[in-house]
Amino acid sequence: MSDASDPIAILGGTGDQGLGLALRFCKAGRSVVIGSRKEERALAAAEQVRAAVPGADVLGFENATATGKAPIVILSVPFEHTASTVKSVKEVLTPGQILVSMAVPLATAIGDGALRTVGIWQGSAAELVQGLVPKGVPVVSAFQNVSAHRLQHLEGDVECDVIVSGAKEPRARIMELCALVPGLRAVDGGPLANARFVEQWTALLIGLNVRYKVPEGLGFRITGLPEDPGS
Amino acid sequence: MSDASDPIAILGGTGDQGLGLALRFCKAGRSVVIGSRKEERALAAAEQVRAAVPGADVLGFENATATGKAPIVILSVPFEHTASTVKSVKEVLTPGQILVSMAVPLATAIGDGALRTVGIWQGSAAELVQGLVPKGVPVVSAFQNVSAHRLQHLEGDVECDVIVSGAKEPRARIMELCALVPGLRAVDGGPLANARFVEQWTALLIGLNVRYKVPEGLGFRITGLPEDPGS
Repeated sequence: MSDASDPIAILGGTGDQGLGLALRFCKAGRSVVIGSRKEERALAAAEQVRAAVPGADVLGFENATATGKAPIVILSVPFEHTASTVKSVKEVLTPGQILVSMAVPLATAIGDGALRTVGIWQGSAAELVQGLVPKGVPVVSAFQNVSAHRLQHLEGDVECDVIVSGAKEPRARIMELCALVPGLRAVDGGPLANARFVEQWTALLIGLNVRYKVPEGLGFRITGLPEDPGS
Repeated sequence: MSDASDPIAILGGTGDQGLGLALRFCKAGRSVVIGSRKEERALAAAEQVRAAVPGADVLGFENATATGKAPIVILSVPFEHTASTVKSVKEVLTPGQILVSMAVPLATAIGDGALRTVGIWQGSAAELVQGLVPKGVPVVSAFQNVSAHRLQHLEGDVECDVIVSGAKEPRARIMELCALVPGLRAVDGGPLANARFVEQWTALLIGLNVRYKVPEGLGFRITGLPEDPGS
């Protein structure tokens, strides 16, 4: 069980999905540290969170500084900045910290569209990230399929399952985080290599958003799970 | 709109999932033609359907004969037999017939496990199949994620979305078929290339079945769709 007084760092917390998570975690009473490549952008995002969530406990820093301030660090940058962001903070990461990969290898990274993906040599973006971090820092894959729009609109529930993949103990800690957001349900996605299934699914959901004209974003639920999935 | 008096052919209708679809389509009052590599196995499966669904309109034939008897032909054979089965019936396929691919490239095809997949040069098993059929025969991808166990247990609903991919008109015809099975809902999966997302998802669901100990098989629902998805 992670300590509820520990802050949660969100690198790329100025982007749509990272900001959405920052809002939701603050609304749940958790302390959040927003990271960005530029400190002033992180500070502006923190201000935005405080405006939406009165009393929010949120700070903004440059990515490496933010990384040093929390036992759980969520990586929420566009895929094309994923590897460079990890490299820029790896000196700060220490064994026992958990790095959460939300990266989706959309083909937008190479100037193509968001309905397609690029192949990742390591199998998934999460495994690519795992290959870049120091020994003793587990990477957990989560949150890729969650609509940024629904995260940011605090009046509604998010209505989406979050398939969480990684080693057992860190995976369980990230599964606990999902319960902070109304409507999110954590599903045990097994080993990190399964991140590839979840990362690909995002591109399918983006296509469904377009075909069904749901700009606020669709989600999904696994059906038939035992009543209390647990970890 | 396909004619409700037309039979539906199911190649590999002796296998768990194909037999499940045969049972459900017969229960819905449709005429079914079961195909198998060996005619006697197809006849035995047809007998099994008649035993479970009194009055079922079902016949059994060798695959090529079955293929000649229906405007919609569903391919429900293990992945390692997909290409050879298509090649064995391609002389019988005529323009306008629709071939439905349920194939999932599970790594069991190469002696590895069902929680992993093999890469397909063409992008997906459905596109591999499309490359093997005569011109004018559209391939539609569907039914990969539907639990065989739940299909076969006629007393329950199946509770799963079916993401249907392919060219517009044949896709719409296969989406109509989903409505024959209580609990199945068709979702417009766009072009055939999107089959890759759906085929991969099956391996994730198989892993979830194991981790959550749900031998009857999990499904999934897309959340946030407009009330009447349509095609």
